[in-house]
Amino acid sequence: MTAAFMRRTLSQETSARALITRMPPVRLIPLGGLGEVGMNALVVESAETRLLIDCGLMFPHAESALGVDVVIPDLKYLDERGGPTAVVLTHAHEDHIGALPYLLARHPHVPVYGTRFTLGVVKHRLAEFGLSPDFREIAPRERFQIGTTTVEALRVCHSTPDAVGLCIETPEGRLLHTGDFKLDLTPVDGERTDLRRFAELGTNGTAALLSDSTNAERGGSSISERAVAESFLRLFPQLSGRIIVAAFASNIHRVQSALTAAAACGRKAVVLGRSMQENVRLATDLGLLKYPSDLLVDPETLEFFKPHELVILTTGAQGEPRSGLFRMAHGEHKLVELGRGDTVILSSRAIPGNEIAVAGLCDELARIGVDLLEDRAGVGPFHATGHACQDEQRLLLSLVQPANFVPIHGEHRMLVAHARTAVGQGVARERCFVIEDGDVLELTNGAITKAPGRAPVGRIYLDGRHGDPDGASEITLRDRALLADAGLVLVVLAIDRKTGTLLRSPEIIGRGVSEDAALFATARANAETALASLPEDSRTDVRAVQEAVRAAVRRAFPKDQDRKRPMVLPLVVEL
Amino acid sequence: MTAAFMRRTLSQETSARALITRMPPVRLIPLGGLGEVGMNALVVESAETRLLIDCGLMFPHAESALGVDVVIPDLKYLDERGGPTAVVLTHAHEDHIGALPYLLARHPHVPVYGTRFTLGVVKHRLAEFGLSPDFREIAPRERFQIGTTTVEALRVCHSTPDAVGLCIETPEGRLLHTGDFKLDLTPVDGERTDLRRFAELGTNGTAALLSDSTNAERGGSSISERAVAESFLRLFPQLSGRIIVAAFASNIHRVQSALTAAAACGRKAVVLGRSMQENVRLATDLGLLKYPSDLLVDPETLEFFKPHELVILTTGAQGEPRSGLFRMAHGEHKLVELGRGDTVILSSRAIPGNEIAVAGLCDELARIGVDLLEDRAGVGPFHATGHACQDEQRLLLSLVQPANFVPIHGEHRMLVAHARTAVGQGVARERCFVIEDGDVLELTNGAITKAPGRAPVGRIYLDGRHGDPDGASEITLRDRALLADAGLVLVVLAIDRKTGTLLRSPEIIGRGVSEDAALFATARANAETALASLPEDSRTDVRAVQEAVRAAVRRAFPKDQDRKRPMVLPLVVEL
Repeated sequence: MTAAFMRRTLSQETSARALITRMPPVRLIPLGGLGEVGMNALVVESAETRLLIDCGLMFPHAESALGVDVVIPDLKYLDERGGPTAVVLTHAHEDHIGALPYLLARHPHVPVYGTRFTLGVVKHRLAEFGLSPDFREIAPRERFQIGTTTVEALRVCHSTPDAVGLCIETPEGRLLHTGDFKLDLTPVDGERTDLRRFAELGTNGTAALLSDSTNAERGGSSISERAVAESFLRLFPQLSGRIIVAAFASNIHRVQSALTAAAACGRKAVVLGRSMQENVRLATDLGLLKYPSDLLVDPETLEFFKPHELVILTTGAQGEPRSGLFRMAHGEHKLVELGRGDTVILSSRAIPGNEIAVAGLCDELARIGVDLLEDRAGVGPFHATGHACQDEQRLLLSLVQPANFVPIHGEHRMLVAHARTAVGQGVARERCFVIEDGDVLELTNGAITKAPGRAPVGRIYLDGRHGDPDGASEITLRDRALLADAGLVLVVLAIDRKTGTLLRSPEIIGRGVSEDAALFATARANAETALASLPEDSRTDVRAVQEAVRAAVRRAFPKDQDRKRPMVLPLVVEL
Repeated sequence: MTAAFMRRTLSQETSARALITRMPPVRLIPLGGLGEVGMNALVVESAETRLLIDCGLMFPHAESALGVDVVIPDLKYLDERGGPTAVVLTHAHEDHIGALPYLLARHPHVPVYGTRFTLGVVKHRLAEFGLSPDFREIAPRERFQIGTTTVEALRVCHSTPDAVGLCIETPEGRLLHTGDFKLDLTPVDGERTDLRRFAELGTNGTAALLSDSTNAERGGSSISERAVAESFLRLFPQLSGRIIVAAFASNIHRVQSALTAAAACGRKAVVLGRSMQENVRLATDLGLLKYPSDLLVDPETLEFFKPHELVILTTGAQGEPRSGLFRMAHGEHKLVELGRGDTVILSSRAIPGNEIAVAGLCDELARIGVDLLEDRAGVGPFHATGHACQDEQRLLLSLVQPANFVPIHGEHRMLVAHARTAVGQGVARERCFVIEDGDVLELTNGAITKAPGRAPVGRIYLDGRHGDPDGASEITLRDRALLADAGLVLVVLAIDRKTGTLLRSPEIIGRGVSEDAALFATARANAETALASLPEDSRTDVRAVQEAVRAAVRRAFPKDQDRKRPMVLPLVVEL
């Protein structure tokens, strides 16, 4: 029986069923991750069941200068409906799990499904927030029921272990969700993406494929994690000083490769940095990391080893100021002092927005004389992306041959590029749905349509991870941006409550503006003139006084061409 | 006679001369550009002559969020010595000319040497500042005398026209300074780097080569500007909508390539954006741009042309919010409305720090449905760097065979990489001087040594290009950063001048902090308690009152983990 025929019969069958039961459509609603890289959160809801696939955060770009540490999706849509029936996590990266604490703070009894490693990481994270929800462990090829929906986890290969995609059998048809994936045929842990199962589920009729678009603009295929492992094996024996491998804390595959290469050349290894240490401990406990039991040494014993006896694993390859590598580069690390003869391998790629920080880090490392190895230096590879490139996306599309295609996880142009790839693989153009956060797709009898209207979505800017869970308001951030741009001028006015007469000369105080005595004198004079010219009956009207003084004082600060004026804040003390 | 022998005799000759005259050494002092990319400014001084080679600015990275528009080098070293004898400019890029207005405001009579195009651009720029200095036009292979020093301009190829390197004949030996250069053998204007003259001057004894390090970490050779020209010629006839080419305003070569391709396929061309229009006008006047006289049309007549009749040249490929391309992408351009069928070619590479802005621009362009072409899309090339890569640097080194080598123009690790390349070409390791701003090299009898001590250097952060030329102080910027990070809380205290008694309850005002009524109430209570607990004789001491209140109010704002506390500013009004 051909796949096309299978699909036709299945479709007839489901239509027949729909005629009888008049089921409401299944709705797909991205609350985050479509139109941006990060804060992934997708709602799949049928009448009685509301699944949330992933619940991630995003790191801020420009907003980081305004005290924003973390951006999370506004989950109002779920809050208004009493929360999700369940959360299903695809893997343990922050952009898939990082917003969970804020959701669970409001809905503590929602069960959280995930694989062993994913739940291990999440458990630790939630404990910091004093949360311990109802965890449900899942494993690839196992099916579990959530309300009217059956879910099956599918092994996918990614840059963190134990990642899965999902097969979601809704009352209106089957969805295949890749999570974040790549098609590495030689992964260091041997866990390949389960292409066979994807193909099988495709052959038996898949209403829609939802697939990771992060690398949709990159042609060809991603390189294998094995290639990085081999670089390490080749390189380590040639080095005589310390070897520092800087990688993402969650990239256990990379840790495995460095540990294997360390053991092969008779070095000891040490893991620095709390997050990497925790992940390594968890992965070791779960059997996801394999190394001789005497390989890892305690960071506190570092001083007893000679440089050529050590491989140091650390985070900080993104130039993060609080990381171990940053402190080493600035000679401020309490355990490691780097210098000539040592080699630092940047085993990651700068995340967009971090380029300047990474360049600064590289410059500091060059300054203290260490050899710096990055991919671009012509050796390597020292990094492999965790996301499928175009040829891999093509292969998956050709195996699944979905009736509908929804590119997920990416900025708009990545979603567009992925849709174009899908059209090239035979998906009809009108069956490709390039949507963004808040758009709603309806699935009925295996067919998808875009619903009118939008769900409420938005970004919440968190001021400190443990700060106000409602986030900093737009007014707060706008004020901070104004203050940052041109500083602040305070005008303190003490006036008689009854007559409005000034009790003393206005005081002018600047913060973040240049202390120019002439300007300040003009500002004071302007303020006095403005008060004197107010009609008598307005002099006791605080708002009128404030407005007059604000305008007068602003005028004292010249605005030639591109010069900006400070925020002027008149404070009226009535006595 | 071999080059080595020549050099030996020359060296003996200069030593003999030094014994007789006891000349003071020639000093090389970088005031900017060594240790960063941008704000190039190098002092070459002998007893009576003080040359400043280039006088550039740098665009801010993180500081841009603090209202900083431009960063310039602190030229105190020159100011303390009555200014330079002359400024010699290598080319018209901002990082080589942008700080001139601030120098000339203090030293208006200093002559400024440069080629025709360079002076044309500078003249225009300085006019905005009401400056019209003593311009001295120079041309390649012409020698000119400045005090005791003879300078010869050497044609180099770069990404802006009429660029030169310099041969500087000092009393103590010859310096070859490349300016910014690449070795394009097929430049679109036919002006190749004058390798023959570099070789000739090398053969006759060059004390030191100072060479552009921007691409010192990139292997191989830069691609030719001609390759971009050919991409345009190949691509334009295949397109049916509008063609928008976004490039740097100063890249006249790129403009030439786009104009040639436009003419070849029968389209008209239009130049948008003030800076690009000015440069095109100047280059046309100087005969540096060649195109049919009816090719360019007036922007105001755009509405009379169909999409397939036009090529639009514009700036904004770096995602600058005020640029034409940004406004087109957001549907806010008053003359051009882009949409499906139109093609935007990003004919530049994102400058480090602009990646996020460029990605945002690309996303908006994808959203409105235009086809976006960048180098990475597998077509092209659409951009060629203006700086020599390693193989070109090697070639120049092998032609000049300098006795000493000073890598210039670059961050520290680029300078290190360039020095490594020089060692590979036979320059002795101890003859390579990796120095940074403020370091001093001394040249005596053709030999270079690093002098002890450092010249005063620094960065001046300008708040608006036309703002205070002394720049924003560090305190100002630190205050702005604090305000940006966590906002501000004002506490207004009206106290009796004699007794220190509070005349009314303290007023608490927040800006850039969340308006949490409970927190504010706690803050007010804390302030009152703190005042009440002050010893009676401290209550009229304004500083003591401020300190007590500041500490008490700060405590009201919780600092759990990574949450930051606002700046607290107590204002005491004594009556």
